[in-house]
Amino acid sequence: MNIFNQHLGLYTDFYELTMAQGYFLDGRKDVTAGFDYFCRTNPFQGGYILFAGLQDLLDILQSLKFEDEDCAYLKQVGFKDEFLRYLKKFRFRGNIFSVCEGEVVFPLEPVLRVEGNIIETQIIESMVLNILNFESLIATKASRVRRSAGDSLITDFGLRRAQGFGGVHASRACIIGGFNSTSNVLSAFTFGLKPVGTQAHSWIQSFPDELTAFRHFVKYYPDRCILLVDTYNTLKSGVPNAITVAKELERQGKKLFGIRLDSGDLAYLSKQARKMLDQEGLGDVIIIASNQLDEYVIRSLRDQGAGIDAYGVGTRVITGQPDAALDGVYKMSMIDGKPKLKLSENKEKMTLPGVKKIIRVVNENKEFYADAIVLTQEETVDMIYHPLDRERNVRTANLPTEEIQSAVMEDGKLKQKKMPVEQIAAFAQQRLGLLPDEHKRFENPHIYKVGVSQKVLDLQGRLATEARAKNVKKS
Amino acid sequence: MNIFNQHLGLYTDFYELTMAQGYFLDGRKDVTAGFDYFCRTNPFQGGYILFAGLQDLLDILQSLKFEDEDCAYLKQVGFKDEFLRYLKKFRFRGNIFSVCEGEVVFPLEPVLRVEGNIIETQIIESMVLNILNFESLIATKASRVRRSAGDSLITDFGLRRAQGFGGVHASRACIIGGFNSTSNVLSAFTFGLKPVGTQAHSWIQSFPDELTAFRHFVKYYPDRCILLVDTYNTLKSGVPNAITVAKELERQGKKLFGIRLDSGDLAYLSKQARKMLDQEGLGDVIIIASNQLDEYVIRSLRDQGAGIDAYGVGTRVITGQPDAALDGVYKMSMIDGKPKLKLSENKEKMTLPGVKKIIRVVNENKEFYADAIVLTQEETVDMIYHPLDRERNVRTANLPTEEIQSAVMEDGKLKQKKMPVEQIAAFAQQRLGLLPDEHKRFENPHIYKVGVSQKVLDLQGRLATEARAKNVKKS
Repeated sequence: MNIFNQHLGLYTDFYELTMAQGYFLDGRKDVTAGFDYFCRTNPFQGGYILFAGLQDLLDILQSLKFEDEDCAYLKQVGFKDEFLRYLKKFRFRGNIFSVCEGEVVFPLEPVLRVEGNIIETQIIESMVLNILNFESLIATKASRVRRSAGDSLITDFGLRRAQGFGGVHASRACIIGGFNSTSNVLSAFTFGLKPVGTQAHSWIQSFPDELTAFRHFVKYYPDRCILLVDTYNTLKSGVPNAITVAKELERQGKKLFGIRLDSGDLAYLSKQARKMLDQEGLGDVIIIASNQLDEYVIRSLRDQGAGIDAYGVGTRVITGQPDAALDGVYKMSMIDGKPKLKLSENKEKMTLPGVKKIIRVVNENKEFYADAIVLTQEETVDMIYHPLDRERNVRTANLPTEEIQSAVMEDGKLKQKKMPVEQIAAFAQQRLGLLPDEHKRFENPHIYKVGVSQKVLDLQGRLATEARAKNVKKS
Repeated sequence: MNIFNQHLGLYTDFYELTMAQGYFLDGRKDVTAGFDYFCRTNPFQGGYILFAGLQDLLDILQSLKFEDEDCAYLKQVGFKDEFLRYLKKFRFRGNIFSVCEGEVVFPLEPVLRVEGNIIETQIIESMVLNILNFESLIATKASRVRRSAGDSLITDFGLRRAQGFGGVHASRACIIGGFNSTSNVLSAFTFGLKPVGTQAHSWIQSFPDELTAFRHFVKYYPDRCILLVDTYNTLKSGVPNAITVAKELERQGKKLFGIRLDSGDLAYLSKQARKMLDQEGLGDVIIIASNQLDEYVIRSLRDQGAGIDAYGVGTRVITGQPDAALDGVYKMSMIDGKPKLKLSENKEKMTLPGVKKIIRVVNENKEFYADAIVLTQEETVDMIYHPLDRERNVRTANLPTEEIQSAVMEDGKLKQKKMPVEQIAAFAQQRLGLLPDEHKRFENPHIYKVGVSQKVLDLQGRLATEARAKNVKKS
């Protein structure tokens, strides 16, 4: 279910529509085009990207249309009637070829390819980038936090610091990256996630004292109740009062589920709280920590032997700090059946032309070893080359390979059934498990080998020479 | 107009609803409460916050309700029928007292105060924080870029890197911070902003060569046309071809509006391009630059005397890099007519109790000098105190003052007419103009004086003592 389903045609950059009208007026509306989505770098100075957002993108593409009100607005800002008549009937009828949502991917790889007429492939650029860049960023960040936290429960607490309504998709991406649940009710409702949450400081403050506040809360929520213990003083008030209430619950044959620490030195306080709970025979009561957590803080807490069983993680994951954006781009690789590239003032920004796919080379344990970017007709690859430096190459002959992409949309229709988010999350964890650890470490991860085939390199070289000959003035 | 108007009741953290049901079952649904929204630090290591998002928040509060489908979902996740019957009739009927949107504010200040029954004031917490934190973050960042760019045109190009649908509000906040226009059509449509954009590399690539691509574009867009000149080679292809087209336009009595540089060394390329254009008598053709710009890059470009007339700014503003979030919180200050605070493990997280307002102390030129946080009944303030260190104080007696807050919503009804975004932006620029430069510099800005009155300090001290006496066990 997509709750953002109004005015989706306008969810684009103005220049997409300007160009679309240009193609239309130029009589080229039915010319075919192909575009690749790919990233230029790994986020967080890490070693991989966890690809997410695909199902949301496909949902939006299926609902994409220009309503009367949208066309009236576009007329007002200068678009022509004949083009607007075309837009009124517009639906995305193209093809999409992609890796699965939850796949582990790397810079340069044409992760997702769009084919169709030039107008439909152009108009969707902004939303392809917006959705895939964002959800992949957040899923990648969340997977790092999951790696730090081991098997501990992790809940997304990010809504209040999320970037506006971006929070709805961000919470979904957190689950894909390995979180267990979310505080975001709208996201839980929209995507079938598990919503959780108990009490804030305001509940405690609304009563004359903390013990009364705790007692009233467990009266209404005796099951899986978590008490927030830092409103007045964690060790001298919150934990002792929680213990009192836990014992009262025990006398009713019930159990307190946990306590939450939300400030102070979490390592110290959690160890002390653990000791106090254990001394009272409350070894089952879990300790949840929150307050500016991320993969580094959680690693440090675990290194210190903190007594924390579960984490509430907000700001730093929901906004993908410190990067805040993934640098994915959407570049034309085919026009009218012919491969196409763009050069650039920055050599590394030259694009890879042609209809391409990814072949993943694996070792005998199915672990990922290297990825080859090849033309779709290539079935095997013996050697892959760094696209900017032919001298850097890796022999891949005779190693087992996987094709990791498939047609996910044809003529605007879904080719595959939608998957529940938890299934995508399970797939992501399985794929991350096949990526060797040296690519997953946080500090200076080993760079995963991604190269192009000889054929791609040759095609790029030939087209670059042609483009220069045609355009660049000799000086 | 709010385009996100479905399921708004669910746009909240689960614990808000858990607590709301708790208050309801506890028979306290009509108890009154007051909450303050305030930030703890300035973003971007800067010296101020530009407050934004108020009108969007008020819009959402007016549409806020729980639809049948929402209640059905909440029942499914465990809420009780009697509470859901209450939620079905729920509307926000509280009062909001706030600074104007576009005001310059500072950490600790109770910028916005919400009063109402405990359920309505609690449920809206997540959305208050989500919207105000995000728009204020982006407006503040945009205002820094505006400061760097002087009077040059600035366009928001951020949609493709925005955090999902957060981009819609982010583009609005860019305008409030001082941008002139946006590429984001949905945001322009929703908030009446100026949408702009011409062509991407794909337009150029879709033609056999760049000159043909330019000629076809100006055929359809002869007015205010901007040609992207870096697809093949900026100085040897793009600029010469743009000059050719500009001269062809001149022969038709028309003018090329500008060229855009999107890669390479923007300082060097813009100076060369300027020279080439000027030599051909095309001094009117403007040069627009884009590619990972922010306040620092723009400052550096201007310091180098780059020949740039306008900027397209994307990722770093639309996501508020590097902070990505503002740390605003929403804390209970009153319950059942009585002032309330929370202590904390972190002393600086102790809250300010009571119904408060901000008095701004200004100098003879109306420039901002210091802000006092006082109880609403205080009309003047002679001395303000650092809330954590009574020894740090500033005498404010006999200086001119302004009250910068007013009632913006009463009993759930708007008290003021909505303002067009451009009017909010103009107000923001005027207010920023009254903030002395030393608070606006990017490196180690002078800290603006914000203090509390003696009465607030005394109230906090008394309540802290009481809270400790009531809750904290002597050890």
